Order: sequence, then C-alpha cells, then structure tokens
Amino acid sequence: MLNRKMDTVYASDVLRQLDNVLIVTHVRPDGDALGAALGLGALMRGNLRRAQVLLPDPLPEKYLPLVRNADFLTEFPAGGLTQYDALIVLDCARNDRVAMGSGTDYPPQDISILNIDHHGDNNVQAEWSCVVPDAAATSAILVRIAALIGWKMTPQAATFFYLGIMTDTGAFRFSNTSPDTHRLVASLLENNADHDQVIQAVYFSKSRNQQLFEADMVQNYSKVDFDGRYAWAALPDEFFRKYGFSMRDGEMLIELLRELSGVKIAVLLYLAGGQVKVSLRSKDPACPVGPLARKLGGGGHEMAAGVTLKTSDLNSAAAMLREEVGKLL
Amino acid sequence: MLNRKMDTVYASDVLRQLDNVLIVTHVRPDGDALGAALGLGALMRGNLRRAQVLLPDPLPEKYLPLVRNADFLTEFPAGGLTQYDALIVLDCARNDRVAMGSGTDYPPQDISILNIDHHGDNNVQAEWSCVVPDAAATSAILVRIAALIGWKMTPQAATFFYLGIMTDTGAFRFSNTSPDTHRLVASLLENNADHDQVIQAVYFSKSRNQQLFEADMVQNYSKVDFDGRYAWAALPDEFFRKYGFSMRDGEMLIELLRELSGVKIAVLLYLAGGQVKVSLRSKDPACPVGPLARKLGGGGHEMAAGVTLKTSDLNSAAAMLREEVGKLL
Repeated sequence: MLNRKMDTVYASDVLRQLDNVLIVTHVRPDGDALGAALGLGALMRGNLRRAQVLLPDPLPEKYLPLVRNADFLTEFPAGGLTQYDALIVLDCARNDRVAMGSGTDYPPQDISILNIDHHGDNNVQAEWSCVVPDAAATSAILVRIAALIGWKMTPQAATFFYLGIMTDTGAFRFSNTSPDTHRLVASLLENNADHDQVIQAVYFSKSRNQQLFEADMVQNYSKVDFDGRYAWAALPDEFFRKYGFSMRDGEMLIELLRELSGVKIAVLLYLAGGQVKVSLRSKDPACPVGPLARKLGGGGHEMAAGVTLKTSDLNSAAAMLREEVGKLL
Repeated sequence: MLNRKMDTVYASDVLRQLDNVLIVTHVRPDGDALGAALGLGALMRGNLRRAQVLLPDPLPEKYLPLVRNADFLTEFPAGGLTQYDALIVLDCARNDRVAMGSGTDYPPQDISILNIDHHGDNNVQAEWSCVVPDAAATSAILVRIAALIGWKMTPQAATFFYLGIMTDTGAFRFSNTSPDTHRLVASLLENNADHDQVIQAVYFSKSRNQQLFEADMVQNYSKVDFDGRYAWAALPDEFFRKYGFSMRDGEMLIELLRELSGVKIAVLLYLAGGQVKVSLRSKDPACPVGPLARKLGGGGHEMAAGVTLKTSDLNSAAAMLREEVGKLL
C-alpha cells in the first residue's frame, strides 16, 4: 500500500474525486470522532456524493439526541468493502484503534484508504494520509477541506463539525484553540450549525446520577500529590457499579482533576475489559504527557494522551503512574 | 442631564474625544465587569489617553492573578471627579449597582457620564448611553468601539476583553454567542490576548476546598422539582462557614443546577448582607427568567437574571421562588 503524506490541499484533491465512501473512526467514539464522521457523511451526501458512516461502538448517552436524525450503520456493511471507492478513517491515530466492527481487521486489503487526523503521532496505515497536528480537531480539518473543495456546508454537517470542535477544545478553553478555530466556528454558526442542540447535549444534559457520581469521586477517590502538582483518581469497578455509571459517559471526568489550582498533570485510571485504561492531561507545556503515554505504549497529543496497560491491577498501575509523573514534575 | 441613547458608532465618536476618564463598573464585579473596566483602561492608556479604573469591591479570588499587573484604584480618587473629562460606567444596568466606593452616590452631578452596557433593561442615568443587548458582553461592545475609533488593541486590553467575553458567554456555550462573538475573539487572540493566563485563572484554578464545597452542595443542597424541570438550591450561612467559602467566588455555582438534563429553570438562593440574593437562569427561551426577576424588583438578561429580596428568610424566599417558577413551567 502506498503511504502518501499530504496536506489539506492534496487531501481535498483526493476527496473531491471520491463518489462512494465508507467512513469510520476510533473505538469508544468521543465528540470529535462522532462529529467528524457524521459531519463528513452529511457533507458528502449534501454535495451529491454517496457516503456511509460506520459506528459499531455504543455512543455516549449524551450524544444520542444529536444523532437521532443522523444516518449511520452500526454493523459492518453486509456487501463488504468492494462496493465503495474508498474507506475514510477519521480522528484515529493507530491501526488497532480503528472501529471496523466485527466485519474485518484493519487495514483491510481490498480498498483504498484516506486517513485524516490531528493526532501528531498518527501512524495509521493508509494510501493517503493527511495529518494536521495544529488543527484543534479532526472536524476542523474537514471544515477546511470542505472549503477547499468548494462544497456547500449543510446545516447538519455544520452541526456535527461544531460538536467536534467544541468538544475537542473543551469549549475553546484548551491550548489547541487558535484564532482560526474561532473563525471556522463563526462560519459553521453562519451555516446554521445548531448551537443550542449541541450545547444542550454536551454541557447541559448531565444526569442527576452522574452529578452524584462526580461528587462522590471528588470526595472519596480524587487525590493530590507532589504539593498539589499531581491530581489523580483510580476508579474501581465497584464505584461504577454503585451508580450504574459507564466510562462511555465519562469523557469529562478528568476535568474534575484538571480544574484544580496548581495541578500540572492529571491522571485518571479505571478498568475496561480487564485492563487498566489511563487518561493523562497536562496543564503546563513544560511537562507534556504525550511522551509518557508513548513510553507506556499509548499515544495522543502532548497535553492530552492515553494508554491501555496490560494489567488488571488498578492499584499497582496507579503507583507506577505516580512514580512516572513524579519524574516529570 | 441629557440622556442620549446611541449606537456604537456614536459612542465611538464620544469616546474618541475623551482624554482623561474614570472608569467604573458594577458592585460584586464578575469577569465581564472586570474585563470591560480594566480592558478599557489599558486600551485608552495604550492609545495615549489618561484613564483610571475604580474597583472598590473585593475581587473574586480566581481573578487576582490576572489583575496583578493591572492598574486600578480601590478607593474613590482623592481629588474627586472634577479632574476627569468624564465618568464611564460599564456593564452596569442600574444606578444603585454602580460601584462608586464610599466617595459619592450615583449619579454624581459634577461630571459627564458615558454608559456602555449589554443589559437590555439598562436604565442607568447618563449623558450618553450605548446599550447593545445583542452583544454577548460589555467587553465585546468595547472591542467593536475600539475598532471603530481605530485604536490599537494592546495585549493587556485584549486579555481583559477576552476574559469578559469568555466568562459572560460561559466559554461560548450560552445562547448569547454569535458568529461575531467568535470573530471578535479571533481578533483578540491575534492581538496577543493571553489565552492561557485567562483560561488558567477562570477554569483551571479551582481550589480543592471549593471542589468539596460544590460536591457537598450537589449531594445535600441542590433539589429538582416539577419533574426535573426546576433545579434549585438555597444555601444557608452555616454551609458557607463550614468551608470558609464566599459567594464572591461563587459565580459558577449556578452551573451545577443549570447543567442538569431536563432542567428549564435554575435558581440559586443565599444570604448576603442580611438579604436573600437570588440568581436565575433559563435553558429554554420559551420560559425566560428576566420577567420574573423584574417582577420581583431585580433585572438582568432574559436567560440570566438576578434579584435581591427584602427579606432574610431563606426558606420562605425559596418557597416563593418555587411557586413563581411553577407558574412559568
């Protein structure tokens, strides 16, 4: 397989020639994964292309109102991949993170692949790769590409791209937010992105149960170490069971650690599928967490990264992370 | 006194002719009050005008790092008002909300007054009044006026205006956010607004004590009524004392009520100076809280308003609010 690295101009030249695509994104999709995939699907269909979006994983509950009228598959297409011109992989940094459903492994051999992402460490195998680490979100790259192609931004596509940019920038608060990010969003709002629907779903639809879960986490599980520079929490399974809460809805939990004054690094640990998952955030460019995540076998951005450890021992994983973070502080 | 209503073009014509001003804002200043006042002060001084900012009230603790290098008075100027060309009143809807310190009542008789605000119910007495209800923040009006005058946007002014817009839009999430809001902010960031400093101060500097206070409030004081459409909390003095927490730092507390799924109206009640203060928020344009606040003697915006009740009985105030909100739902 070719593996051509390209910028958004070249990627737009590739994309404009595709007529019938399957769009996929990463496992456990977050706001940008959903926004990019469903946004591109809506955009292409709104511009006389055929596009299907495959989302085999369960979606975070709060996003369900947003996808109610969206068109996507939850299972690998019965006709296989040969019916498509190309497979488009969005917001996905590694082969083993591509959510293909149970139909096939990644990379499939019988189709051209266009890989579009903003994770600097992206090493997804693809014929064409457009990786823009400066972009705040994969959705932002797609807005740029749509403008380069000259596609009409439909309200539904604008709404999904707005979702992606809003969530990946933490409402324009994270350091990945640039003047361009704000200008792209101004254009999306002018193209009738449904600001209210996105905001209600993402920020104003917390369940009372989740609020109580978070209050309990703050009081009983979150800890600060190294004179307040390190905030962390290791959440055992029984804590999730107590509230019937799933990490699928926990995208924002790490904010409860990051928001604390004086914290430079925040780490959240929990069990998923018998392995310890670790989310890492930095608030100080002088101690990025990307290198630590990569050292442990994970990846992500410099200030926001993650890793799945090959252990089911939450406490020893937490102790190991504490030691590693101590070296960075 | 004249009372000329004017748009931003006329207001810019007035402002450009002023050489030496005193700038004031409302009591208990929030992010936009601080941002507008300190931003305009820095902007005028950066454009060869003389400007002093008077902030007699204690500031929210989280904003202290931002104002460390800012230039402002905490007491009414010893020389009185006659030394100035004009008094500029920012982000302040009513005469009795103007924070003049102990030096004088509002309106003072011996000076021209320019009143700039985005509260639609503004009725501050002034020679010139520029009220723009569509503006997301008073800081946003000032950015527009600065551009109309052709003043150079200094980094310090840009940082303060960014603070004001960021906080009054709840990080671009509230319905007052428009494409223009995003474009103004793009221009502020390009003029070297210190994104990181503002974000760290506003969003990533919560004390552990405040986090525990909030968790306690969620578990023990916040209530939902009317099938989840009304969320409210009445916080007694002993609860504040338990944590040594002051409402000066509580600008965001009502978000813990507003963020709940299904809630249409959120109300927070607490005692201040022996009177019950009430903050009201709506999430549904079909049941705005502005009219209720005005009916009770307060004011504000349609979706975010407040009132101080002439009672010290928190529980009966809460019962009265519950009944009034019930009529709206």
